[in-house]
Amino acid sequence: MPTRNGKLTLAYDGGAYAGWQSQPHGVTIQQVIEGVLGQIEKKPVALHGSGRTDAGVHARAQVASCRLQTPLTARVLRHAINAHLPTDIRVNRIQFVDADFHARFSAIGKEYRYFIDTSPVADPFRRGYSWHHPQPLDLAAMRRAARELKGTHDFRALSANPMRKIDTPIRTVRQLTIRERDAGLVITAVANGFLYKMVRTIVGALVKVGEGRLGIDGLIRLRDAKTRTAQVETAPAHGLFLWRVIY
Amino acid sequence: MPTRNGKLTLAYDGGAYAGWQSQPHGVTIQQVIEGVLGQIEKKPVALHGSGRTDAGVHARAQVASCRLQTPLTARVLRHAINAHLPTDIRVNRIQFVDADFHARFSAIGKEYRYFIDTSPVADPFRRGYSWHHPQPLDLAAMRRAARELKGTHDFRALSANPMRKIDTPIRTVRQLTIRERDAGLVITAVANGFLYKMVRTIVGALVKVGEGRLGIDGLIRLRDAKTRTAQVETAPAHGLFLWRVIY
Repeated sequence: MPTRNGKLTLAYDGGAYAGWQSQPHGVTIQQVIEGVLGQIEKKPVALHGSGRTDAGVHARAQVASCRLQTPLTARVLRHAINAHLPTDIRVNRIQFVDADFHARFSAIGKEYRYFIDTSPVADPFRRGYSWHHPQPLDLAAMRRAARELKGTHDFRALSANPMRKIDTPIRTVRQLTIRERDAGLVITAVANGFLYKMVRTIVGALVKVGEGRLGIDGLIRLRDAKTRTAQVETAPAHGLFLWRVIY
Repeated sequence: MPTRNGKLTLAYDGGAYAGWQSQPHGVTIQQVIEGVLGQIEKKPVALHGSGRTDAGVHARAQVASCRLQTPLTARVLRHAINAHLPTDIRVNRIQFVDADFHARFSAIGKEYRYFIDTSPVADPFRRGYSWHHPQPLDLAAMRRAARELKGTHDFRALSANPMRKIDTPIRTVRQLTIRERDAGLVITAVANGFLYKMVRTIVGALVKVGEGRLGIDGLIRLRDAKTRTAQVETAPAHGLFLWRVIY
């Protein structure tokens, strides 16, 4: 049977998972979807995500690709996969694409959104999908800070992992905006790529500025330090959504 | 110490609970809040809700009242209660009100909202807060049907429980509207009161009309039957929110 290249667009509530990528401990999203694809293909399937999302991080539109032999149409296959997946993971779209498409290597950018619930009492319906931060935040200062983090920088100080030799720590943040919405803030970050924990670290820095615990000069020094220090804080995972992957 | 009459405005995600009202099986919302109030008051507290919500039903603004002896201010008391409650139940507001206020007997009406997710694939972030109904719905027919259910009727056929002698089955539905929102529908129902499972049964009937399985004439016959029949379907609990209680 001819092999087709499947592009899957996925939404998931990451609350119950140890992140995207298969690993020895805890159930991962990749592993659950690979399990279902393996049942349909009747052999192991390797699913390539556009990138990892951490434990607890959500996706509105993660993209993954894999080789498939099933003769099912995209629509029927989507239905079959969803029927076997737990309800916190959904395949919203399947497209059969050119053989050279690869969810990770073909991506030219990503958009993440981070949700902060600023209401005095946490909204129970957003408790799994936003960071509850009732203390006042200086939005004007946060927006000035965001402008300093936009553009092309070595983001090692605003990420978490030791770089592997092969990677470059330089990324270009094309958009970093903060909007007020529904008794809260939405921070939107678009870049050609993000280092490990980079969005949550950027959010942590912006909030620290908003709280008045970090000035713009301090932020710039921090941004240019090229090493993560104890000054840097990581916002909680459950406020973060991988919003879209740009190809 | 003088006793004050506390009016609590509550939000809860009903997903994990056997409904509002204390009962022998399963944990209820009333029971959890009474437990926390009992810890603060150091004696049992009887909490009166505006009415019951069924197992799995949510509340954006349930109201409950109780006598309290604590000298804490409303703000500090709210903080103390929330610190002890699970995160799926929140007290949004506490007011100390006139001694004759009673959450149930003082209520003159209620608003419920029912959420339907009409997208082809269920949204994982709304899975606990909406009824996934991807089959096409005739919105114009549903709106015609809603007009027939508005007004003052004996709603026994569109509710679930055998009436206790003391109750009247007559209710006045002041508003029953259907709006399109976020790849879905929101059905808003306002009445001077609702019988047991009345909102979910009304939603079940409206959806049956929308699916073309029930005509307007059939709906009117059903509305006036004064007895529930097998024709009547109850929409799932997890799409329903007690939106506000009117005093």
